[in-house]
Amino acid sequence: MVSAKRKRPSGRKIYLDEHTMSEFAERVKNRKLVMILPIGAVEGHGNHLPLCTDSIQPERIAERVALSGELDAIIAPPIRYGNCQSTKKFPGTLSIDPDVLRALVRNILLELARNGVRNIVVLSGHAGSVHMAALRQAAQDAVDCFNLNIMVLSDYDIAYDFSGDTAPKDDGHAGMIETSRVLSIRPDLVKMNFARKGKVSIPRFRIVRDPDIYWKNAVDGNPQTASIEFGNSVNEYITKGLIGHIKKML
Amino acid sequence: MVSAKRKRPSGRKIYLDEHTMSEFAERVKNRKLVMILPIGAVEGHGNHLPLCTDSIQPERIAERVALSGELDAIIAPPIRYGNCQSTKKFPGTLSIDPDVLRALVRNILLELARNGVRNIVVLSGHAGSVHMAALRQAAQDAVDCFNLNIMVLSDYDIAYDFSGDTAPKDDGHAGMIETSRVLSIRPDLVKMNFARKGKVSIPRFRIVRDPDIYWKNAVDGNPQTASIEFGNSVNEYITKGLIGHIKKML
Amino acid sequence: MVSAKRKRPSGRKIYLDEHTMSEFAERVKNRKLVMILPIGAVEGHGNHLPLCTDSIQPERIAERVALSGELDAIIAPPIRYGNCQSTKKFPGTLSIDPDVLRALVRNILLELARNGVRNIVVLSGHAGSVHMAALRQAAQDAVDCFNLNIMVLSDYDIAYDFSGDTAPKDDGHAGMIETSRVLSIRPDLVKMNFARKGKVSIPRFRIVRDPDIYWKNAVDGNPQTASIEFGNSVNEYITKGLIGHIKKML
Amino acid sequence: MVSAKRKRPSGRKIYLDEHTMSEFAERVKNRKLVMILPIGAVEGHGNHLPLCTDSIQPERIAERVALSGELDAIIAPPIRYGNCQSTKKFPGTLSIDPDVLRALVRNILLELARNGVRNIVVLSGHAGSVHMAALRQAAQDAVDCFNLNIMVLSDYDIAYDFSGDTAPKDDGHAGMIETSRVLSIRPDLVKMNFARKGKVSIPRFRIVRDPDIYWKNAVDGNPQTASIEFGNSVNEYITKGLIGHIKKML
Amino acid sequence: MVSAKRKRPSGRKIYLDEHTMSEFAERVKNRKLVMILPIGAVEGHGNHLPLCTDSIQPERIAERVALSGELDAIIAPPIRYGNCQSTKKFPGTLSIDPDVLRALVRNILLELARNGVRNIVVLSGHAGSVHMAALRQAAQDAVDCFNLNIMVLSDYDIAYDFSGDTAPKDDGHAGMIETSRVLSIRPDLVKMNFARKGKVSIPRFRIVRDPDIYWKNAVDGNPQTASIEFGNSVNEYITKGLIGHIKKML
Amino acid sequence: MVSAKRKRPSGRKIYLDEHTMSEFAERVKNRKLVMILPIGAVEGHGNHLPLCTDSIQPERIAERVALSGELDAIIAPPIRYGNCQSTKKFPGTLSIDPDVLRALVRNILLELARNGVRNIVVLSGHAGSVHMAALRQAAQDAVDCFNLNIMVLSDYDIAYDFSGDTAPKDDGHAGMIETSRVLSIRPDLVKMNFARKGKVSIPRFRIVRDPDIYWKNAVDGNPQTASIEFGNSVNEYITKGLIGHIKKML
Repeated sequence: MVSAKRKRPSGRKIYLDEHTMSEFAERVKNRKLVMILPIGAVEGHGNHLPLCTDSIQPERIAERVALSGELDAIIAPPIRYGNCQSTKKFPGTLSIDPDVLRALVRNILLELARNGVRNIVVLSGHAGSVHMAALRQAAQDAVDCFNLNIMVLSDYDIAYDFSGDTAPKDDGHAGMIETSRVLSIRPDLVKMNFARKGKVSIPRFRIVRDPDIYWKNAVDGNPQTASIEFGNSVNEYITKGLIGHIKKML
Repeated sequence: MVSAKRKRPSGRKIYLDEHTMSEFAERVKNRKLVMILPIGAVEGHGNHLPLCTDSIQPERIAERVALSGELDAIIAPPIRYGNCQSTKKFPGTLSIDPDVLRALVRNILLELARNGVRNIVVLSGHAGSVHMAALRQAAQDAVDCFNLNIMVLSDYDIAYDFSGDTAPKDDGHAGMIETSRVLSIRPDLVKMNFARKGKVSIPRFRIVRDPDIYWKNAVDGNPQTASIEFGNSVNEYITKGLIGHIKKML
Repeated sequence: MVSAKRKRPSGRKIYLDEHTMSEFAERVKNRKLVMILPIGAVEGHGNHLPLCTDSIQPERIAERVALSGELDAIIAPPIRYGNCQSTKKFPGTLSIDPDVLRALVRNILLELARNGVRNIVVLSGHAGSVHMAALRQAAQDAVDCFNLNIMVLSDYDIAYDFSGDTAPKDDGHAGMIETSRVLSIRPDLVKMNFARKGKVSIPRFRIVRDPDIYWKNAVDGNPQTASIEFGNSVNEYITKGLIGHIKKML
Repeated sequence: MVSAKRKRPSGRKIYLDEHTMSEFAERVKNRKLVMILPIGAVEGHGNHLPLCTDSIQPERIAERVALSGELDAIIAPPIRYGNCQSTKKFPGTLSIDPDVLRALVRNILLELARNGVRNIVVLSGHAGSVHMAALRQAAQDAVDCFNLNIMVLSDYDIAYDFSGDTAPKDDGHAGMIETSRVLSIRPDLVKMNFARKGKVSIPRFRIVRDPDIYWKNAVDGNPQTASIEFGNSVNEYITKGLIGHIKKML
Repeated sequence: MVSAKRKRPSGRKIYLDEHTMSEFAERVKNRKLVMILPIGAVEGHGNHLPLCTDSIQPERIAERVALSGELDAIIAPPIRYGNCQSTKKFPGTLSIDPDVLRALVRNILLELARNGVRNIVVLSGHAGSVHMAALRQAAQDAVDCFNLNIMVLSDYDIAYDFSGDTAPKDDGHAGMIETSRVLSIRPDLVKMNFARKGKVSIPRFRIVRDPDIYWKNAVDGNPQTASIEFGNSVNEYITKGLIGHIKKML
Repeated sequence: MVSAKRKRPSGRKIYLDEHTMSEFAERVKNRKLVMILPIGAVEGHGNHLPLCTDSIQPERIAERVALSGELDAIIAPPIRYGNCQSTKKFPGTLSIDPDVLRALVRNILLELARNGVRNIVVLSGHAGSVHMAALRQAAQDAVDCFNLNIMVLSDYDIAYDFSGDTAPKDDGHAGMIETSRVLSIRPDLVKMNFARKGKVSIPRFRIVRDPDIYWKNAVDGNPQTASIEFGNSVNEYITKGLIGHIKKML
């Protein structure tokens, strides 16, 4: 996807791969430079949200952090593929083996470190436990090789802090919060008239072959109450929270 | 990168992950549906072209094919990481191990096939022999498992057909043709005042640890003669050529 | 460790490998037979608890479930090795790579299934997120191959339900609950005079090379208030809870 | 299995994981400390011996060596899973892929060495050639990384020295010697009334898919002449022999 | 195959493994010593050429280079197995997975380097792109570990330079040039009365499951015009060319 | 190595890869066809025997079996690389990782079976326990996939039967028997004036980093008493013995 131009504060580029060789060499001299690697997924999110739901959220957060001017941050090319066990059988979900995901992310982190990058944030829009474990292992491998400051998180780790007070309980995948956030980012991709309540009912602790049997519509919560305003607030909250966590790391 | 909206002929979406579950389920019923998977790289291309040079070219070609209306084509999320042996030591190059690249692409192809996709084009902007072999192996693994129509190519395989007549001889990496094509796609990312002639001089058949020793500036050819017009022509030629090859496959 | 004889209700053996071939062949005919695979670790737990702390807890729970007479359960040979990232640098911790753990558990599960076992509980005393992800992936691999009922959990997943009401907040590794449980199981291995308060302070989301820098004594909580009585109650609660979950699965 | 307390000479613990962190740190200062890692199997041994036959023999030998007071030895948590090709099709045999076994043992050995252990004995009750090769490769990997004294053996390597004079020829799996040894260790698990003569007849050099076709009852020899007394003698002989080999290594 | 004696100039041996330990130790002291590793394949080449066609060509070239006296060259034991995707379905083709080929060649190169060899030529008679990429990756792995001079090529890379002027266009697999070369090396293995014209017609860029569908007889070109004389000339040309490339490398 | 022509009884070819496609297709129709795969090594054998000692012995035996006329046997291209742990540090030894060896042999066996070969003999001149285990695992993998008759042996497994009566005790690597056999096969490669007695003294059960410390000259036994006549007898005995074993298998 050849994306259109974006605004940059004080002319600094925010995407790693829009730099030339020499621009990058100059940029990486700043030992406070932060590289954000957004990780997404191609995953069913009800019939009202697009398959890229988990990709565009961390990408937008990364963009906001980089544009904020509070940090010297640039964004590595996003990975829009993740491990999606529980939604694997829904149409359109492409689930990557966690070993492959781990190997890919490890490889990218090692290459960033070899190039002199010292501070890295792996920011995932998808938050499955096996998926996140793969990312954490990749980061562990990298930090065991290079002297790095590195963080691995899902933007939802911060989102749920916020929404704890204001959002409905048990809201999850493709629910009120996620739908609001996507409304805030790409409203053109949301079909609110298809938003339906749903509930995951895989028995606790069970590992099943066909999780879709326990989950009618790939929705966990009630997306019908979602709003752009709420999405804006959550995204704003995550952006600030993430900037805070990064500053502590530097 | 949360990209801006793009025009679509007759309203059909061109990006896989902008579909909802049910939209994708509907779309994939067409057995003539073609999925294009663009593969790029983060790789040094002289001091005048951006690191995303090999990514934006196949992504733009894919977009043009999908928008052409001559095929029912959609685009899977691009992979902007590749194996870059000969430029590995230049600032900003992130080189992915070919085994990792192969595993990732194989996994995506198998997931596409599991979802009912029958016709796939793996379109790479980077064309290193080890990189291309990894892609071909991934496709071979997939076609040995599923009954697929599948093509693997670099857009440069077609580009050189065109330019054989009109471009300077021995033009290559970051040279006149590539610079023209990027000028045609993202002129804002090209710094023509930094364009310099260059020449790879790794001795034939040699495998070397530090290829940059034999290659001063990551340019192979003379980019100074590049032009948007020539780039437009090449991109047009590739688009038409690729559509032709796909039609033959269906 | 050649263990001493244990009492069995109605003479039924509770350990898989104490059966002869023909005894096992007879036993496995019962399609309601449940196999419990206890997973532990060799891991530092302060200076008051033994390295086997995470092993003896699930082993004791498994024994109590099997001896309860409420289910036809037998226990596979425990694995006393796990993945221990955050305590890796403490003396005596042996941390197994999660890929190795996953491969081992997957292999055992596939062999159990090949032998006709249909219901399996993987019960881990250690609960690190990468460790648990490895167990879940192993179980997923097995259930994708064989038609199995399978559960993966840490006994602490149930323990924290109980202790939510009665235990101090933020109690964790080698804290009040764990110390109480070990007191209830192997009081001879607990040195209460060495029990000290502690606190993990690895910054949130950070992946670090030397987690022990952020964690003075491998204790998270206050073990000084532990008691056998509380340990008995927790172990009783977990046993009943687990029996309930298994019955639901059958 | 939460085992009962065992006697220890002069109060020293004999099991690695019964130590606390600081106890282990103290213990490992002795550069003559020997770690014994018992390896067993879950494997059919006729209808008179339990599936744990290959596990309890090296575990008991390890215990006797550690209790002998002739060495400063401690015992790592046993692995009760091995590679069992020729008995794979008998009920109850769980055969672990040799690559998995190798990776697990290698990982444990490297972790022991990282913790400062310098002398290690890998003692297997199972003695298949592929199984033993996996253990030897694991040990080779470890000794190539760390400066270790390491031995890999099956207790049967020593047993056959002894029995060469006094035992029937061609006695093997679940035969007179093994049955006697298990009678000496866990008589409650032996059902002498089910002891039957048997003979492996896989043609020499052949690799077969179903070895059980060539082997009626998973017995190789005549277990009917077994006795506790003979078992005691063999176990005594192995214990002394092993102590001698270890002393030579130190 | 226990081969017959061969003539050697000035008595020097040309095969690595015909040396004794001390002869090799002496020989390797020469830092200009060149090791040639011939790689072949077992692959269908029409009904007129033997399956060893791709093996005997580089072996003969290696022999001629070593016997020429222009270099101090010795020949490592050839590998007569390669990756043969496009001919895989023809009778007699044994196709090795490229990962296995890569691992084997990497292992041999690392062992040669550990033994003090400094200059290596990997010379393949087979030239499939995936096969060659595996060889190049193996060489890259080796040169990244050891300070080596290393070349990877197919003898056909040089052959086509020569034949460009004198051979029919589009001559390829089992065609006029290859048949001539084999006639020159092992005329007893060529059955000219079975030589038939052929043409690969796998559509460009396509990856197919059954390439033999597009290729009637495993011939690409017209072998009927082949001659020993032409074969002699090509082999002579390759030998001289290769010597030249090696001299440049030293 | 392009070998010279060999005599064949009744004109039948004895080397797999000297057949054309159609000759092989015809030959493999005989369901009694036996494929022999010789495995060797590049390994130090004292200063009197060549590095190819372990290669030429099974190759010669295979040739004799194939030429005997008692079986319809053909010989696959030999692998002259093996795993050589105990001689690894002697000059000229190239030791292949057992995983690589296993993968290569498994791949060849699977390809032979895919081509319709039903009876296979893997005949190794090298007999290290880890090396042999790798070959047995490869054969096990193949026989678990295809319905094959398959044998794995070292020619020394039969040689020691013979020499039990007539050869000196404790004769081993590069000793009297092996030297005699090589004298019988390639006398031009044996330097009897360099033959010295030797003795391996690696302590029993030990795994060591530098086995050469325990083994002065890579000889185990007394090669000085070797003779061509004895070598002829042993080779004759092995040939007959192997033919007998194969006939039993068919």
